[in-house]
Amino acid sequence: MRLTTYTDYGLRLLIYVALKEGELATIQEVADAYAISKNHLMKVAYHLGQYGHLETVRGRGGGLRLARSPERIRLGEVIRHMEDDFTLVECFEPSNTCRITRACRLKGILGEALKAYLAVLDRYTLADLIDRQSALDTILLNRAAR
Amino acid sequence: MRLTTYTDYGLRLLIYVALKEGELATIQEVADAYAISKNHLMKVAYHLGQYGHLETVRGRGGGLRLARSPERIRLGEVIRHMEDDFTLVECFEPSNTCRITRACRLKGILGEALKAYLAVLDRYTLADLIDRQSALDTILLNRAAR
Repeated sequence: MRLTTYTDYGLRLLIYVALKEGELATIQEVADAYAISKNHLMKVAYHLGQYGHLETVRGRGGGLRLARSPERIRLGEVIRHMEDDFTLVECFEPSNTCRITRACRLKGILGEALKAYLAVLDRYTLADLIDRQSALDTILLNRAAR
Repeated sequence: MRLTTYTDYGLRLLIYVALKEGELATIQEVADAYAISKNHLMKVAYHLGQYGHLETVRGRGGGLRLARSPERIRLGEVIRHMEDDFTLVECFEPSNTCRITRACRLKGILGEALKAYLAVLDRYTLADLIDRQSALDTILLNRAAR
């Protein structure tokens, strides 16, 4: 049931960049703020760019910013993009060998449960993750609470 | 998001034993029917016994049967028992080091999504998994369709 570290870091990166409110963030700065791997974050940033969540400004003084407002970035959408594996059990895979697949209802029921899980995440946006902005600012950006 | 092989095998074992309708099933027979590891199944059977889903009859001619009727075995309950890890992201762990934990809403939102996922599984029982019993019988027990 665990989300990948990749998705976890993706969400953290989006939170950080959202807090900067349009000011550019560098990968180094985000890696330092969370004390996590810069290498991992670079791959995550690349993919968040591809999916249209982040924008990169190149060159000296460049960095990252959100491509859309945080209210328009749904968590369900981010998690669908970042998680490459919604294979809940073997029968979700093309290489499935479970012999009872054609008569078993498990796949349908687990699929329904997954839909309910993602439906909850679709009700929230990145803006909901930063609604304690002043507390997050203090921790991540070393800015005094507003 | 994937369930463990352990949980997957647990569900397959329960399906098989349910189809036998009280007649004893042996681990060897279940392993053969699904073409999966007997060793894995033994551990799974042991734990399903501990959780009160299966009963073991010992000795010669012994085997497994359901401890309760399939209508009384909820899938949500089985999956809660079998999955040892509902850690969705790092902050669900006691060893969590994510710096923004106290100000971040992600844990609450993911927790709500997990609750919705399990709520769907609580609406179904083992009886729902075997409602195409005659087709399952044909595949697993080599019995003619009824």
